[in-house]
Amino acid sequence: QQGFRIQSADGANVARFRGVLHFDGRYFADDVTPETADTWLLRRVRPTLEGTFNNIYDFRFTPDFAGGRTIILDAFVAARLKPWAVVTAGKFKVPVGLERLVSSTDLRFIERGLPTSLVPNRDLGLQLGGDLSGGVVNYSVGYFNGVSDGSSSDSNTPNADAENDTKGDWAARVFVQPFLNSDNFALRGLGFGIAGTYVNSTGSTTTTLLPSYRTPGQQTFFSYRGTTTGVNGTIADGERLRWTPQAYYSIGSFGVLGEYVTVSQEVSRLTPTAGLRRDTLDNTAWQVQFAWFATGEDESFRGFTPQSIFDPSQGTWGALELVARYHELDIDDDAFIGGADSYANPASAASKASAWGVGVNWYLTQNYKWSLNYDVTSFDGGAAIGDRADEKALFTRFAVGF
Amino acid sequence: QQGFRIQSADGANVARFRGVLHFDGRYFADDVTPETADTWLLRRVRPTLEGTFNNIYDFRFTPDFAGGRTIILDAFVAARLKPWAVVTAGKFKVPVGLERLVSSTDLRFIERGLPTSLVPNRDLGLQLGGDLSGGVVNYSVGYFNGVSDGSSSDSNTPNADAENDTKGDWAARVFVQPFLNSDNFALRGLGFGIAGTYVNSTGSTTTTLLPSYRTPGQQTFFSYRGTTTGVNGTIADGERLRWTPQAYYSIGSFGVLGEYVTVSQEVSRLTPTAGLRRDTLDNTAWQVQFAWFATGEDESFRGFTPQSIFDPSQGTWGALELVARYHELDIDDDAFIGGADSYANPASAASKASAWGVGVNWYLTQNYKWSLNYDVTSFDGGAAIGDRADEKALFTRFAVGF
Amino acid sequence: QQGFRIQSADGANVARFRGVLHFDGRYFADDVTPETADTWLLRRVRPTLEGTFNNIYDFRFTPDFAGGRTIILDAFVAARLKPWAVVTAGKFKVPVGLERLVSSTDLRFIERGLPTSLVPNRDLGLQLGGDLSGGVVNYSVGYFNGVSDGSSSDSNTPNADAENDTKGDWAARVFVQPFLNSDNFALRGLGFGIAGTYVNSTGSTTTTLLPSYRTPGQQTFFSYRGTTTGVNGTIADGERLRWTPQAYYSIGSFGVLGEYVTVSQEVSRLTPTAGLRRDTLDNTAWQVQFAWFATGEDESFRGFTPQSIFDPSQGTWGALELVARYHELDIDDDAFIGGADSYANPASAASKASAWGVGVNWYLTQNYKWSLNYDVTSFDGGAAIGDRADEKALFTRFAVGF
Repeated sequence: QQGFRIQSADGANVARFRGVLHFDGRYFADDVTPETADTWLLRRVRPTLEGTFNNIYDFRFTPDFAGGRTIILDAFVAARLKPWAVVTAGKFKVPVGLERLVSSTDLRFIERGLPTSLVPNRDLGLQLGGDLSGGVVNYSVGYFNGVSDGSSSDSNTPNADAENDTKGDWAARVFVQPFLNSDNFALRGLGFGIAGTYVNSTGSTTTTLLPSYRTPGQQTFFSYRGTTTGVNGTIADGERLRWTPQAYYSIGSFGVLGEYVTVSQEVSRLTPTAGLRRDTLDNTAWQVQFAWFATGEDESFRGFTPQSIFDPSQGTWGALELVARYHELDIDDDAFIGGADSYANPASAASKASAWGVGVNWYLTQNYKWSLNYDVTSFDGGAAIGDRADEKALFTRFAVGF
Repeated sequence: QQGFRIQSADGANVARFRGVLHFDGRYFADDVTPETADTWLLRRVRPTLEGTFNNIYDFRFTPDFAGGRTIILDAFVAARLKPWAVVTAGKFKVPVGLERLVSSTDLRFIERGLPTSLVPNRDLGLQLGGDLSGGVVNYSVGYFNGVSDGSSSDSNTPNADAENDTKGDWAARVFVQPFLNSDNFALRGLGFGIAGTYVNSTGSTTTTLLPSYRTPGQQTFFSYRGTTTGVNGTIADGERLRWTPQAYYSIGSFGVLGEYVTVSQEVSRLTPTAGLRRDTLDNTAWQVQFAWFATGEDESFRGFTPQSIFDPSQGTWGALELVARYHELDIDDDAFIGGADSYANPASAASKASAWGVGVNWYLTQNYKWSLNYDVTSFDGGAAIGDRADEKALFTRFAVGF
Repeated sequence: QQGFRIQSADGANVARFRGVLHFDGRYFADDVTPETADTWLLRRVRPTLEGTFNNIYDFRFTPDFAGGRTIILDAFVAARLKPWAVVTAGKFKVPVGLERLVSSTDLRFIERGLPTSLVPNRDLGLQLGGDLSGGVVNYSVGYFNGVSDGSSSDSNTPNADAENDTKGDWAARVFVQPFLNSDNFALRGLGFGIAGTYVNSTGSTTTTLLPSYRTPGQQTFFSYRGTTTGVNGTIADGERLRWTPQAYYSIGSFGVLGEYVTVSQEVSRLTPTAGLRRDTLDNTAWQVQFAWFATGEDESFRGFTPQSIFDPSQGTWGALELVARYHELDIDDDAFIGGADSYANPASAASKASAWGVGVNWYLTQNYKWSLNYDVTSFDGGAAIGDRADEKALFTRFAVGF
């Protein structure tokens, strides 16, 4: 059920109330993660009011109250002038990463994979997009304030949800489902595409415009060197170009999602000993993830429909799904060259994270899900001696989505 | 009226919109409270979206925008699998204190009494509970992140709504209304129970895990010694055990609520002169409160129904209720022993607060209330010389609840 | 359409869902405004739940999620006991400035004019008001916590949405539309009134109770001297009296709004060289603004109704409105006298801002608007040498309001 509705008699004006609530338990079976990270937490608390006027004009309000802070997640207006001409203005997901674009309710894993760390999340901007050939081709092109890898504009400094540099980011994406309207059972679940962003901008030691990257367990494993007394850290200084080819395929109760992301970022660092160092660093990530409905439901890129609900009085059990994935994030080795003058500190920032994960999703109803995930992440470097110890994260989630 | 509803044709799926808005005026007729405490303030601003899917699965979103900050107050999912097996996961009230469990709309006084200072408010966790024998027995048992006395997890440090130590708290409660389904007019309004929490955890000088306590006028009257340069303050260090027997009784238009709370907390303090001091401190509180509908309506633990509304055009006046209470909070005397090495400073922290209060509630409609309260609180200690001066708090409230 | 409704069968109880979403793009074509001010931003993100019980009692919840922070904008209860006796309690607009009282959806310009900088925005208080003679006379009188010029109580320090001094502010307003119920086409669109506030209060160097003023481009152009190490800044110290005569007139598709505001504020400053300086500073502002519907719709103080919507498939275009304004804000010259002992620093605070602006509003539907504004502001003083450079602000807005 896609939300609760109030609508006018002619159906042209509609308000819909929707919501996502994800309550997670986290437990780390390793020696590297701080014990306070074993916790209950509210991961997503997102009541939504959205709607349509005159069958053409849409809007959405989605605050998020999770994690002990409040932000506005989605806030946009859109005009569906033609199927191929939809104008969207406000704060919404930048059209780049494939798993990032999956709605949080439809995620197969509790936390998204490592490639999502390299693509933008939500940002403020203006977008033109739409469907061609009855949805076979979907395109988007937009102009946004710009955010760091994996970030939303609500994390921008010094001012949240505002420009943090003097330049805007261009973003574009094309996604093709060539057999969407075909009768070919084996092919109609296939889709692939490519997306990217571009900006040429320079940060400062207070607003570096550079990201940190986090593990599947949401612990930071890579940061650039920050500024300390008398010694400048690393800053973004020039072009940033992201590219991400991506594909999804489902057949019957089996689905697979794959994506590759590369971020090419010009950086610089002014140090007392080496002067101004400049480089272009290419960080890359990829993942492949598999899902299978043990109870026979169809896999699909969007949504799911359990054939029964869990109701002890009826003796029905809902749907059960098994999932597995492998994902990697690889930092450019040039980031660690130069000793004390390097862009990142090899004793604390890992140069690579490789992770595999398995999980089970129990769909109690169309709207309720209970999930259990186990992710093991290995690192290259990132410790004073040798490699950072493996992260072993056991996560559970109680989810409602409507 | 319990909120505004949107529901599916079969009634199995329901969304309800509810709200609590409490706007208060505060005036202190004493010499101890700062003049800036005389103020208008928003005490509760809580729009709520809650609902049910498939007649079994519930959810609730309740942010609170009061007091110049925004938090998520309630955010949970629940499965009512059987009347005796309700699983709740998320953020909600920990099942301990009796007056704490009264909904804010049904409170008889503007501010809850002193025993509420010793029991948890909202926390994140997983709970199993339900009704036995048609509601004669209600039980709850849960595992939570854990909060300080009187606190909610949104006040946790360093991270709001997350674990602040390395241990979870167990909480449990049983409440019995033995004559709930009886015809005996004199007995069916009787209920009593007991509840408690347990954890074994150690704080630090930055996250002490220890509470402050506030007067009915919401001014702090007791704190443990904090850490100052070179001198450690008091920290939680070991077991914390709370117990609270509780009872409610109503007959006709007369109701009485009573509760007793004791918190046994192991603390320690490392001082330059005394080394590591350790103790178990037992703080206790109790209250008894009376309510009487002068206009003849029935008192009850939950809710009220005025026989008329205030409508000048109809010449009807609504319902009038008179209330009175006595309440105390007593700090363990061992907290003040040891001079400069004591756990609390007797010159600023009172060892006991004793308060009486009277009030009037004018129910303009089922959903609107205007209240006026007068509370006088006396203290033992808490001043450089002798006792902290009495607090005399005159509070008024404009309330809407639906 | 005034929101989406849920109501009881008899219509006595109603909940309405409303919203305002303003997404702005800002570009400055001048040399004075920092380049980071060229940005997309969420200016207003305000979902609203309001309603009525028993046809008498109203409530409203309006949070605002714009600008990277969350506040409660409106939160009040009201009792419409008689048309001439409406009691409102909570947080709402203080009844003073004319353009401030225009709802954000009905604003003709993207940003309000300079006089609005001198009048209160939202505050916490209790108000009695209503209509006399069928709405010919509207009056309001209230008692509020008090806010600085142009501010809301959510900006109060040290505690948001609470008293920041020890005194409350009185506010009152009378507005007359003498020909409201007349058939005289030329006169019935005329309204005029007067409003004011009064308080006698003293700030401190940490809570000065003094305002800053901003340009139409939302950049600060005037501040009093702040406290620096060893040297006190300027503080409010005594009476503050605001007066504002105001008028609105519309005839057919033409409308004009005018207002004048003066704030008389007693200030003081304790300096090492001049001792305690005291003065009463009179800051004034005025504006006149014109609006004309090129597509022939009627102008009115509240609302608008486009005769068609923009729908490419129907070949209809919506409504087009052209607007223009002139506005000024003049600081008392005494604020700059005294060299280093002055109340404001003439090298950084301008003594006068004069602005003209033009704009176009395209009403795509009753609920969607696209606006473009150009405002040029000139300054007297406010620079180390000569005058602060002109501000040239090009603003656009994508708006939804329902």
